[in-house]
Amino acid sequence: MKRKVNLGLIGLGTVGVGVVELLQRNNAIIRQKVGTEVSIRAICDKDPNRLRLAERMKITDGILTKDFNQILNNPGVDIVVELMGGYEPARKIVLASIKRGKHVVTANKALLAKHWAEVFSEAQKNKVLVYFEASVGAGIPVVQALNEGLSANKIKVILGILNGTTNYILTKMSKEELDFNDALAQAKRGGFAEADPTIDLEGIDTVHKLAILGSIAFGAQVKLKDVYCEGITHIAQEDIRYGKSEFGYVLKLLAILKVTDGGIDVRVHPTFIPQEHLLTSVNEEYNAVYITGDAVGETMFYGKGAGQMPAASAVVSDIIYLSRNVYNNIAGRVPYVLCDPKKKLNILDINRMETKYYIRFTVVDLPGVLSKISGILGKNRVSIASVFQKGSSSLREVPIIMVTHRAREGAIRKALTEIDRLKVVRKKSRFIRIEEV
Amino acid sequence: MKRKVNLGLIGLGTVGVGVVELLQRNNAIIRQKVGTEVSIRAICDKDPNRLRLAERMKITDGILTKDFNQILNNPGVDIVVELMGGYEPARKIVLASIKRGKHVVTANKALLAKHWAEVFSEAQKNKVLVYFEASVGAGIPVVQALNEGLSANKIKVILGILNGTTNYILTKMSKEELDFNDALAQAKRGGFAEADPTIDLEGIDTVHKLAILGSIAFGAQVKLKDVYCEGITHIAQEDIRYGKSEFGYVLKLLAILKVTDGGIDVRVHPTFIPQEHLLTSVNEEYNAVYITGDAVGETMFYGKGAGQMPAASAVVSDIIYLSRNVYNNIAGRVPYVLCDPKKKLNILDINRMETKYYIRFTVVDLPGVLSKISGILGKNRVSIASVFQKGSSSLREVPIIMVTHRAREGAIRKALTEIDRLKVVRKKSRFIRIEEV
Repeated sequence: MKRKVNLGLIGLGTVGVGVVELLQRNNAIIRQKVGTEVSIRAICDKDPNRLRLAERMKITDGILTKDFNQILNNPGVDIVVELMGGYEPARKIVLASIKRGKHVVTANKALLAKHWAEVFSEAQKNKVLVYFEASVGAGIPVVQALNEGLSANKIKVILGILNGTTNYILTKMSKEELDFNDALAQAKRGGFAEADPTIDLEGIDTVHKLAILGSIAFGAQVKLKDVYCEGITHIAQEDIRYGKSEFGYVLKLLAILKVTDGGIDVRVHPTFIPQEHLLTSVNEEYNAVYITGDAVGETMFYGKGAGQMPAASAVVSDIIYLSRNVYNNIAGRVPYVLCDPKKKLNILDINRMETKYYIRFTVVDLPGVLSKISGILGKNRVSIASVFQKGSSSLREVPIIMVTHRAREGAIRKALTEIDRLKVVRKKSRFIRIEEV
Repeated sequence: MKRKVNLGLIGLGTVGVGVVELLQRNNAIIRQKVGTEVSIRAICDKDPNRLRLAERMKITDGILTKDFNQILNNPGVDIVVELMGGYEPARKIVLASIKRGKHVVTANKALLAKHWAEVFSEAQKNKVLVYFEASVGAGIPVVQALNEGLSANKIKVILGILNGTTNYILTKMSKEELDFNDALAQAKRGGFAEADPTIDLEGIDTVHKLAILGSIAFGAQVKLKDVYCEGITHIAQEDIRYGKSEFGYVLKLLAILKVTDGGIDVRVHPTFIPQEHLLTSVNEEYNAVYITGDAVGETMFYGKGAGQMPAASAVVSDIIYLSRNVYNNIAGRVPYVLCDPKKKLNILDINRMETKYYIRFTVVDLPGVLSKISGILGKNRVSIASVFQKGSSSLREVPIIMVTHRAREGAIRKALTEIDRLKVVRKKSRFIRIEEV
């Protein structure tokens, strides 16, 4: 048995500092759970100020370096904790660690989502464990739940609110009737949005996380290009308002994965869900993942989806689990996630996907307009469930709002293209997909 | 490496049949996850009809027996799946399995809650794994979450709706304004209450589950006698109604565990919680566990807390995890839960516990009554936050309803004993604790 377990920490940003703090604060219980001491043997960061701070705080009596090779080449390091984020050099570091037989804990969802098959094939080949609980839902232990706790199930549905920034903004838009830009400004002031929030707002961060959950569920990579993606920057306040007041819907940026007869329906977009659904209670920076399995039925996992200590909770829990196995010399004997790089997933094309739609047309207030619009919808086999028209003699443009029965996305798009060419239609029609769970 | 992993199944009741069904239905994914076949080598049940059914359904080509020793003594059985429930002979079977080096999967919360230290000390000593995900919240993987996914945390609070029967009854009492007896009858008709539901109604089943969660959280046994217990049979419809209409509270049978300065506050009783809390959305037979850790903050785990397939989901997920480790010959090298039999937990006496209280007095409608009552409360340092009195000249008895500020349970009980001796008080005063999370 080894005397103690040694970590090499790469990336001393917000989460890195949280990890250091948590390892110190809960040292006694960690030691008890692992059976030995877990110590930080080396820290790497490209920012010399952070290294100086680490030195002053006496975080480690080991190495402080700007060069990650000093960690990769250090035979004393058992576990590499990669917290730098981004694709490169994180990918290089993770793969090099694996090849040198070092286990990995990472919070890097972008890396995993993109290079899933490569990372886990290498891990399996080298009998090394890669743990990544923090990559989805921060401290919510949903990765392990899906991978192990629900492993007896065929996964049927995953619905997730997986991004704190967008959920904060949509909560503000919904509850305080703010416009998108005002809500974004408030999120930035509150520390819930980064200086450049593009990846969050455009849904890309959510796509990363959904691809990870899907890859776990199917034992094969759900690729980024498999996931239809649409962000929230185009969302108008009035649609949130109409959706709620007229139809009882709440808007969320939803990660959706469904196993259908036609293939795996996997997408990220703003989505209306009925007020009664538990996911509508997930507000502000909170995240939740709703998973349906063939045996377990409906489950939900809820918690803070971002933040220093929630992320550190997941990283350190991974460290504890790995360290116990390293200490007992069995880490990597059984792979953590299964990934068959040859397995091809049958992904449903977005145009063949079927759901209900909320549509807002902006039209001139003249007789016959509704008839024209509904005619085109009918011709495309889109059937209307309810209509709300706010007449006004004083305005030249009025909205017509509709909720359809289930229809194919392709049919909706075709119909709207045709409708938007009508002279009586004044603006591009907007649609929001509805998820009735 | 072993050729395949062999199970010995003891107890072919509802859950046992579900486990058999799920092992067959999802055979392909289980095989892939384990890396080899998992087969049922032997089945034991005391009911010959069940054994005949098992024979007719060709569940196993191994042994069918009434005698559990045939499983314990069978060297081919790697994992004993104990699904008979109750204290004995389940305890004997689990301990004998452990001593013979057989790993155990059990759904038996009564057994674990009572004999926690014994079972896990033996397991550790014999390097055997005991998995028990189904014992709390059925298919919700909360045992693993608390034990591993949140292991970096000091656990501060656990709040759980852990019993499907009582939650179903309270949901009916709350939403349909049924009396307790009518709601119970409906639960029985719907299959949500057993013929003798005493253990559920009196809170004992919830105590078992809370003791298990607490024992995981603290690495030492929370004993049954440590947990204050009160069931729901005395709950009056009018208290549910007043709580909601006057104060915005929803009544749940709550499992509560809190780390306080004075010790571990651990109890099960009907509890009012504010309507805004996520737990109030947990209705009918659903369960949820709300866990706060020092790093992760608030989390919640939700799903069906009972039922054949949800329970089978947990049992088979445990079987998959164990089988992978058995197949790779590393099962038991690292213990699953830590249990220090020498560690003494400091449990807070219920009388020293502090919370807010809802109290209903039944009094004669005379001037000065409220003054007398509030005088006695004040003398006992119980301070009133709000009062609701429904005056009526035609009735000889009227209710006075109060919500207090935080007060000690001991003070409340002392005050109520004194108040109930007043001549103007016509019935025993009722109180319900409030949890404002």
